[in-house]
Amino acid sequence: MHPFPKTIAIVGSGALGSYYGAKLARHGADVRFLMRADLEAVRWAGLRVLEAGAEWTLQPARTFASTAEIGPVDLVIIGLKTTANADLARLIPPLLHEGTLLLTLQNGLGNEEFLAERWGAERVLGGLCFVCLNRISPGVIEHYGHGTLSIGEFRRSPMIRTRAIGAMFAAAGIETHGVENLVTERWRKLVWNIPFNGLSIATGGRTCDRLLADEGLQAQVRALMRETIAAAAALGHEIPASFIDFQIERTLPMGAYKPSSMIDWQQGRAVEVESIWGEPWRQGRAAGAELPRLEMLYHLLREVTMR
Amino acid sequence: MHPFPKTIAIVGSGALGSYYGAKLARHGADVRFLMRADLEAVRWAGLRVLEAGAEWTLQPARTFASTAEIGPVDLVIIGLKTTANADLARLIPPLLHEGTLLLTLQNGLGNEEFLAERWGAERVLGGLCFVCLNRISPGVIEHYGHGTLSIGEFRRSPMIRTRAIGAMFAAAGIETHGVENLVTERWRKLVWNIPFNGLSIATGGRTCDRLLADEGLQAQVRALMRETIAAAAALGHEIPASFIDFQIERTLPMGAYKPSSMIDWQQGRAVEVESIWGEPWRQGRAAGAELPRLEMLYHLLREVTMR
Repeated sequence: MHPFPKTIAIVGSGALGSYYGAKLARHGADVRFLMRADLEAVRWAGLRVLEAGAEWTLQPARTFASTAEIGPVDLVIIGLKTTANADLARLIPPLLHEGTLLLTLQNGLGNEEFLAERWGAERVLGGLCFVCLNRISPGVIEHYGHGTLSIGEFRRSPMIRTRAIGAMFAAAGIETHGVENLVTERWRKLVWNIPFNGLSIATGGRTCDRLLADEGLQAQVRALMRETIAAAAALGHEIPASFIDFQIERTLPMGAYKPSSMIDWQQGRAVEVESIWGEPWRQGRAAGAELPRLEMLYHLLREVTMR
Repeated sequence: MHPFPKTIAIVGSGALGSYYGAKLARHGADVRFLMRADLEAVRWAGLRVLEAGAEWTLQPARTFASTAEIGPVDLVIIGLKTTANADLARLIPPLLHEGTLLLTLQNGLGNEEFLAERWGAERVLGGLCFVCLNRISPGVIEHYGHGTLSIGEFRRSPMIRTRAIGAMFAAAGIETHGVENLVTERWRKLVWNIPFNGLSIATGGRTCDRLLADEGLQAQVRALMRETIAAAAALGHEIPASFIDFQIERTLPMGAYKPSSMIDWQQGRAVEVESIWGEPWRQGRAAGAELPRLEMLYHLLREVTMR
């Protein structure tokens, strides 16, 4: 068995990075959080997590104001918004030793590529998070649903180290699966995110139930799913057409659910337009897929989310 | 020469109906305005028109609170918003004698059909207005550009009566052209209205210059124009592809122009979603055209303009 990483850095300590980092640290891992806005609050009161009707605090949480202070670690978990990816160019180098692994938990396409180009493909893993989290105040994270993590290697099948990292998350109480083809999984997630996150913003803030209740809008949801599957197929990722009905069915009971990008937009935060819509459109188009709705949605979103 | 209509009713005395009606009345025609909100103001102070740096007043203007009070006339000019078309079912009958003509100056597709189905195709004419008007207060209309009217018959070539009505407008100072195929002209106007009116709302209020300045958005404008031309072609209306460059070129000098639907939307008024996007999409689709962007835009607009 590959050993667990001994030292872990969390880059991007929003709700996602803080939550997974706190879970790992609570289970005994040496987790070092890079923090900016919440640094003082967490140094004072620790990282508080509200989940399952209870509350627990990681105190002290090892917080740092720069990655230079953190220094080289075995594993970097990246939870940064993809809109801030340019910052990684200066944030990552101080964290690297020869064997440092980079695990991106970010949304959409292009994040593993970004890391691989700069610091070598052999270091790179990616994860998909199926979790509902909210940072309700500085250093306070609410976990209100799910939590599953799917972890895979960048352009490789899972390795012993992949399973070791998965086992580390599992031991910390996070259901974790290894995925054979990470990019296929990212496309499967996009089949949901592209229509629901996108149309919820383009309609000025409609929740999922509303997008499905209107026959004409549901037809757009389904058409965008078809285009996403066509783009994936053009790139060699087979997703069956039946996946569309499955996604619609599983969304119906979610009711007035607000997709994460819609919350970002409503709260005036940056929306991950490039990783969720731009990059899938560009990659799919380059591979020859016809993506008229995705193309228009991407350009509308780029414009309306501009800040 | 067919005689000029002796009596004219204006149904829908917003900026459009009021302006054209006032021009005709000023030139001596017996024009009877159906008015609701502005009735008292116009009875008191007349219909004021600001144009070409000057101002003139039609006083008295013959205003009525119901079409029953107006009674049968030779020509009904319909300037009502198409979102209020259902009201025509009760507004029109009191205005009809055997030879009454119905001229709709409304936007988009389906208006002539609406009139023809109810009161007979032989009565119906349509006009396209290329004019910039604004109702700046009750009974006060500002005319700040253009004014050309294109008049045609419903599913017929121009007739003697068409030219007589055109001559009546021309005599009142309105440049008027007869059009051979009214529906082709409506599609040509839609080539502009569908992308610019639609994307200006879908982007949350971008003006024309902005839609053209962004390369990706301009590509969506052009793609929607191509779809509109494809829909028209499927229905037998040939519009050359070069029309797209022509429309882009003529829009560039318009600067920060706000399409009329965007003004309606921003001011909380009903947007003519069905006549400008819904009916063209339905007709084009039924004729076999591929209209993915128009379909998505229509459904987005229907949702965001819902009141």
